[in-house]
Amino acid sequence: MFVPRRIVEEKLRQILADDVGQGDVTAAAVIPKNLTVKAEVIAKDSGVAAGIEESIYLAEYLGLTVKANVADGDKIKNKQVLMQISGDAQTILCVERTMLNLLSRMSGIATKTRTLAEKLEKANAKAKIAATRKSAPGLLYFDKKAVVIGGGDPHRLHLDDMVLIKDNHLAIVGSVEEAVKKAKAHVSFSKKIEVEVTNLQDAVKAANAGADIIMLDNLSPKQAKVAVEALRKAGFDKVLLEVSGGITGENLLEYAQANVDVISMGELTHSVKALDISLEIIKE
Amino acid sequence: MFVPRRIVEEKLRQILADDVGQGDVTAAAVIPKNLTVKAEVIAKDSGVAAGIEESIYLAEYLGLTVKANVADGDKIKNKQVLMQISGDAQTILCVERTMLNLLSRMSGIATKTRTLAEKLEKANAKAKIAATRKSAPGLLYFDKKAVVIGGGDPHRLHLDDMVLIKDNHLAIVGSVEEAVKKAKAHVSFSKKIEVEVTNLQDAVKAANAGADIIMLDNLSPKQAKVAVEALRKAGFDKVLLEVSGGITGENLLEYAQANVDVISMGELTHSVKALDISLEIIKE
Amino acid sequence: MFVPRRIVEEKLRQILADDVGQGDVTAAAVIPKNLTVKAEVIAKDSGVAAGIEESIYLAEYLGLTVKANVADGDKIKNKQVLMQISGDAQTILCVERTMLNLLSRMSGIATKTRTLAEKLEKANAKAKIAATRKSAPGLLYFDKKAVVIGGGDPHRLHLDDMVLIKDNHLAIVGSVEEAVKKAKAHVSFSKKIEVEVTNLQDAVKAANAGADIIMLDNLSPKQAKVAVEALRKAGFDKVLLEVSGGITGENLLEYAQANVDVISMGELTHSVKALDISLEIIKE
Amino acid sequence: MFVPRRIVEEKLRQILADDVGQGDVTAAAVIPKNLTVKAEVIAKDSGVAAGIEESIYLAEYLGLTVKANVADGDKIKNKQVLMQISGDAQTILCVERTMLNLLSRMSGIATKTRTLAEKLEKANAKAKIAATRKSAPGLLYFDKKAVVIGGGDPHRLHLDDMVLIKDNHLAIVGSVEEAVKKAKAHVSFSKKIEVEVTNLQDAVKAANAGADIIMLDNLSPKQAKVAVEALRKAGFDKVLLEVSGGITGENLLEYAQANVDVISMGELTHSVKALDISLEIIKE
Amino acid sequence: MFVPRRIVEEKLRQILADDVGQGDVTAAAVIPKNLTVKAEVIAKDSGVAAGIEESIYLAEYLGLTVKANVADGDKIKNKQVLMQISGDAQTILCVERTMLNLLSRMSGIATKTRTLAEKLEKANAKAKIAATRKSAPGLLYFDKKAVVIGGGDPHRLHLDDMVLIKDNHLAIVGSVEEAVKKAKAHVSFSKKIEVEVTNLQDAVKAANAGADIIMLDNLSPKQAKVAVEALRKAGFDKVLLEVSGGITGENLLEYAQANVDVISMGELTHSVKALDISLEIIKE
Amino acid sequence: MFVPRRIVEEKLRQILADDVGQGDVTAAAVIPKNLTVKAEVIAKDSGVAAGIEESIYLAEYLGLTVKANVADGDKIKNKQVLMQISGDAQTILCVERTMLNLLSRMSGIATKTRTLAEKLEKANAKAKIAATRKSAPGLLYFDKKAVVIGGGDPHRLHLDDMVLIKDNHLAIVGSVEEAVKKAKAHVSFSKKIEVEVTNLQDAVKAANAGADIIMLDNLSPKQAKVAVEALRKAGFDKVLLEVSGGITGENLLEYAQANVDVISMGELTHSVKALDISLEIIKE
Repeated sequence: MFVPRRIVEEKLRQILADDVGQGDVTAAAVIPKNLTVKAEVIAKDSGVAAGIEESIYLAEYLGLTVKANVADGDKIKNKQVLMQISGDAQTILCVERTMLNLLSRMSGIATKTRTLAEKLEKANAKAKIAATRKSAPGLLYFDKKAVVIGGGDPHRLHLDDMVLIKDNHLAIVGSVEEAVKKAKAHVSFSKKIEVEVTNLQDAVKAANAGADIIMLDNLSPKQAKVAVEALRKAGFDKVLLEVSGGITGENLLEYAQANVDVISMGELTHSVKALDISLEIIKE
Repeated sequence: MFVPRRIVEEKLRQILADDVGQGDVTAAAVIPKNLTVKAEVIAKDSGVAAGIEESIYLAEYLGLTVKANVADGDKIKNKQVLMQISGDAQTILCVERTMLNLLSRMSGIATKTRTLAEKLEKANAKAKIAATRKSAPGLLYFDKKAVVIGGGDPHRLHLDDMVLIKDNHLAIVGSVEEAVKKAKAHVSFSKKIEVEVTNLQDAVKAANAGADIIMLDNLSPKQAKVAVEALRKAGFDKVLLEVSGGITGENLLEYAQANVDVISMGELTHSVKALDISLEIIKE
Repeated sequence: MFVPRRIVEEKLRQILADDVGQGDVTAAAVIPKNLTVKAEVIAKDSGVAAGIEESIYLAEYLGLTVKANVADGDKIKNKQVLMQISGDAQTILCVERTMLNLLSRMSGIATKTRTLAEKLEKANAKAKIAATRKSAPGLLYFDKKAVVIGGGDPHRLHLDDMVLIKDNHLAIVGSVEEAVKKAKAHVSFSKKIEVEVTNLQDAVKAANAGADIIMLDNLSPKQAKVAVEALRKAGFDKVLLEVSGGITGENLLEYAQANVDVISMGELTHSVKALDISLEIIKE
Repeated sequence: MFVPRRIVEEKLRQILADDVGQGDVTAAAVIPKNLTVKAEVIAKDSGVAAGIEESIYLAEYLGLTVKANVADGDKIKNKQVLMQISGDAQTILCVERTMLNLLSRMSGIATKTRTLAEKLEKANAKAKIAATRKSAPGLLYFDKKAVVIGGGDPHRLHLDDMVLIKDNHLAIVGSVEEAVKKAKAHVSFSKKIEVEVTNLQDAVKAANAGADIIMLDNLSPKQAKVAVEALRKAGFDKVLLEVSGGITGENLLEYAQANVDVISMGELTHSVKALDISLEIIKE
Repeated sequence: MFVPRRIVEEKLRQILADDVGQGDVTAAAVIPKNLTVKAEVIAKDSGVAAGIEESIYLAEYLGLTVKANVADGDKIKNKQVLMQISGDAQTILCVERTMLNLLSRMSGIATKTRTLAEKLEKANAKAKIAATRKSAPGLLYFDKKAVVIGGGDPHRLHLDDMVLIKDNHLAIVGSVEEAVKKAKAHVSFSKKIEVEVTNLQDAVKAANAGADIIMLDNLSPKQAKVAVEALRKAGFDKVLLEVSGGITGENLLEYAQANVDVISMGELTHSVKALDISLEIIKE
Repeated sequence: MFVPRRIVEEKLRQILADDVGQGDVTAAAVIPKNLTVKAEVIAKDSGVAAGIEESIYLAEYLGLTVKANVADGDKIKNKQVLMQISGDAQTILCVERTMLNLLSRMSGIATKTRTLAEKLEKANAKAKIAATRKSAPGLLYFDKKAVVIGGGDPHRLHLDDMVLIKDNHLAIVGSVEEAVKKAKAHVSFSKKIEVEVTNLQDAVKAANAGADIIMLDNLSPKQAKVAVEALRKAGFDKVLLEVSGGITGENLLEYAQANVDVISMGELTHSVKALDISLEIIKE
């Protein structure tokens, strides 16, 4: 996910403008104009940094000077100074919360993702942790990027980059075969086709119909394992297998032992625990 | 927070457009055009409904027909059908995730807020639960509205509606008195002035200087109690007292016993646990 | 009212784009490309400068160099050179009218406000001149800022920063007490509550119900005086008292003698006399 | 100036959104949801109605029902009911000020224009009153439309629809002949070319060079008369002659007697006296 | 490519607004307000209809009534009436050119695509005609949709839905293997990976490295055939093979005989011959 | 057509954002961050350069360094290096196609226009080649500018800058005289009035009614010649005469011999043959 800085800046401007409204009345009333101050962005908890790039973009866009001590993806500790910012005092105070909201949400997502990804690595599992589209409304770009920074796979970025046939599509089309057949007939050769199934039979049908990826939805770890082995035994070597639904930090490794390729978890982005990060004006 | 429907629709259109990109390739490939189907939005967990109004706006905006069985603020149970939607199948499938992301985030916020608000009510505490500006980036409107639906106070809506002098402002201005004095001199009479303090002495100074609200930041419940009593004894009856920092569901009642007016918690909106809600196409 | 420069620039870009349309055909046809010229912005009347900051932002945003000889709020005289601008000739000519429209409107507002504010000061009145929301459509930010530069109070900035219960709200709710009671019950503690009343009885009811501010609407100076004295006598010391309606430069001091806190006048922003300011290319 | 309704609605939505911010806290706190009320828009002064179409668009866009008793351009009297509006109470109260700001500004412009236009008509002058680009920032569309409703000529709508060579262009190009020559060489045949001159000699040069319109800037009525007669005598029958600069309601007829075609006045739109119009909820 | 109608409407509104500017001065001056007329959209050439859906959306969005006699993808003949429109005369005349520009460009693209697609069908070639990203600036959605309507494959929709490693990427990375290896390591499992190569050796390397699709760029039909056969012989059965560069209507079948899967042609969208379509007001 | 650079940049940003979507997955996966490279923009065909200014704006806006070897309007040859660009590799690869789409479309338009303009010059015809509003949807600014660069006349820029009464207006109004009369009565003096006619009689009526320009639509060269001579003989010396409809490169000179002032051709912008231009990363 590479987006030219100017396009990211415009996203950030809109987020900031939403917070500013008709003006920051506190900065205007209390802080002198054209006063230069220094500030530090400090971690109040340990985790994985994300949103550093966006924070630099935002600060520099507003004419502030930033020195970042960490990069996106770096592990950070409580009390660690992540960035030093200097510039116009009113501007720093006005943008403080927008910047911290970005940093703490993105770092929270990256931290959770990294924890799970490392759990898989340590267990030598081949599975990759992946996100879903269950993000905060309108925040797909930032949420997905944070997952990537945390070492996860963003999965499809939105609705245009992959066919993902889910239960509701199947409820309308009627059968897995029919749905995959339709997808292959009507979608561009440039797209992968994934199907969500809830049992082995449908998984086999999907594979036979030519799905590139099969999502085993809401299976127990044991059921998932049976399904994966059956599919591999049936010769579907190239089909990627994804599990989703009901997966938590606790049962993650059980699912990993099913030898799946991808484990996707909505809670990576829909139920984020923000990492505690604050900004402090430095008195000199 | 009343916002004319057309303005909310435009916010929703932008959120949807971000998810759609160049098009929903799955709906296009797999689902017939102009097919009318029915769907149900179903709770998968119990909690407090929020985002129902936005969901109705969004669905009707797209030409769908909605029958809502619950209103924002209603308690909902697992398996409860919240809304029935009918209309164009491609449209329903395309908007499904955007709608659920709104509903599940807003309902998650409302549910958490209600739980804490009820805890306070049962304890006959006069304190009100309040949000902060620690929302997901760009989602102040939706996050604050969900807090209100949950029975909480939205606190200031963004930077233009109140003076809130925080530690960083004080670090620049130098003293609580000076900061409040400046605020009173320069801000419109239409705004309240709040000051964040970390000890009783500063609280007294703030009250003397004419602050409307004093935020006792990062005090222990015991310290908060001492401060509140001292301030009331000193005759500051009209000054609202708010505690913030380090407050959790566990120690909430201890803070309430300090007899404060407002208890604000960033986690209401920065660390949301989404309420599980899904949409299911109804086969007939 | 502090708004980060980049957000102001985007407002200015939209205003400029509205004037440019598909292109400045005169500059394109008559003025050479890449020609550097100098220009002066010159007052053609005396008054108070406002819009200087916006003009600097706009000029620099377009790559021009500006030297401002006055700051917002400075008194200016006929023939005074307010700013010197140098840069691309086509750009200067294209932006000339947008810049002057901003400057002359904002300076007109600031000049009128200052005249009235000084009148009050000289009379040792405690009352402050305040604006209303009766601005030119969409220009709340610029109009309110000009009032502040002129020494007035912006009053509420728009609909989200204060409760102001007016005659039409009362017509629906039925009584002043009920309206204030509802406001206190449903609005955030962070907002002040103001009520518009047209007689002393309702003013007393509003004060008793807990209004923070009472607007005495369309009272004669004498009636206003009676009402203020009665309210103060009744012990409502903290309630701010505002008069509005039918106030002009002529009767201003009569209202001031009623000892009110705030005198708000719609004409500050709805019937602006633009200050005459022009831009002249300097021949060398 | 015909603009499709949907495009006007979007302009109006942006103006409204600027006023609403994060929400109308008064309507939310005090007015019940889903309450239907009636309101009347009432003139508080006599003049010419303008902005009626925009008000209808705005009200209907928000789901309100409108019955307009007057059309744009109609003469209206004090106490006359201009429109009856019914619908959601919160919506009416939220949009009230935006609608009145449009109506009162546009009606103020139309009223002033009409007064001057009628003065010319009564004197049997052939001259037409025209606007300039000296509008409130960003309001060219609304301000120009109001001039047209008042019976004036909008003059060029912005920078793309006509060549108008002014003093600053001439200061760069050097001579009237050269400027007109350049304009004729480089601009599309579809555009008229106007030149601003300050004396008769330059007027003749401009006419000889082929200008379609000559603006006599800052001439006295007598000078203007001399110039017009000299030009007509010299055979320039087709060239339109415009006077501008220093024209007021008082000396208007003197300029008209100079037999010019167009009299343009910046104050029509830069120094608007809003017409007093209010909205009242009807108690039933 | 399914995009909810409201999102398409907003794209269309922006295109229309660009053409309208400050207003349609001709419709305003010449056509009465509120006059209802009928119009027909008529083909002036034979081809394949596209843009019909967008035209219906646009017309209905503006309050017009449309009866479409053809659907997107239908073959149309000279003089055929494609749509009947009725409604406000000023609106129809104002939107006429925007609608025809959409229709004639999209139908031009669909017609060209269909011609080539049918050529391939008749020759029993398995190859599919595909578009590229060489569209008119900003028109990816409309141009790609027209290709699909014409029976072509849209290829990737923009930069987020597929990895396509081109010559310039290879110039930086150094080798095909390295580039594909990097892509597989860093991109989501949800994306296909395509590599552009200019000779057989690189094609084999790409296939070995795991590319999903190989684009044979600027090969002659004969070279393409040799490459395809070599790759198939080497056992790369699943790899899709695309040819691109220098393909025209004339040599299309020669490339098809190379047995490739996809033939992509930039000229489908970068050098469009608009289909002649006009709108005529019906006199009754 | 002069548009301030910042306004053009915003147009370009939107075009680029449409192509980028959620991110350039190829550049992200394959190209290192913060790698500086050089690239050349190279003509692959001969023609007239256009879009150079836009390309410089776009590249510099994104932080790239550009050295342009040609200016808009210069003749270019196959293999000529038009621009040298250096800067961030991911950024260059991400913007490549957007830049080339602009360059190749605009240069294609300029090349075609120049060819026809030179044909007229060589024949000593007084007629000017002109564009129409038949552009690609939303691209009026870029398409018209390219025509101007090619030596053509842009004709009206959109709907606000000229009255052009066409067949459909006449179908409603009834007669040429009536239409022109209405236009003269209702449109600003600042606009020219053009009428489209299909025979000599109507042309004479239009001239008599005071049209500034007469468009002879769909006449044969011979008919056009007869009409022009008749009009000139009738003394209409100042009326501009335009031919339109059915004009091609082949019959262009025949129309020119009719002695018309303007020859407008829709195909200049509706059926563009893009000039082949590519970007190549330079290996060092």
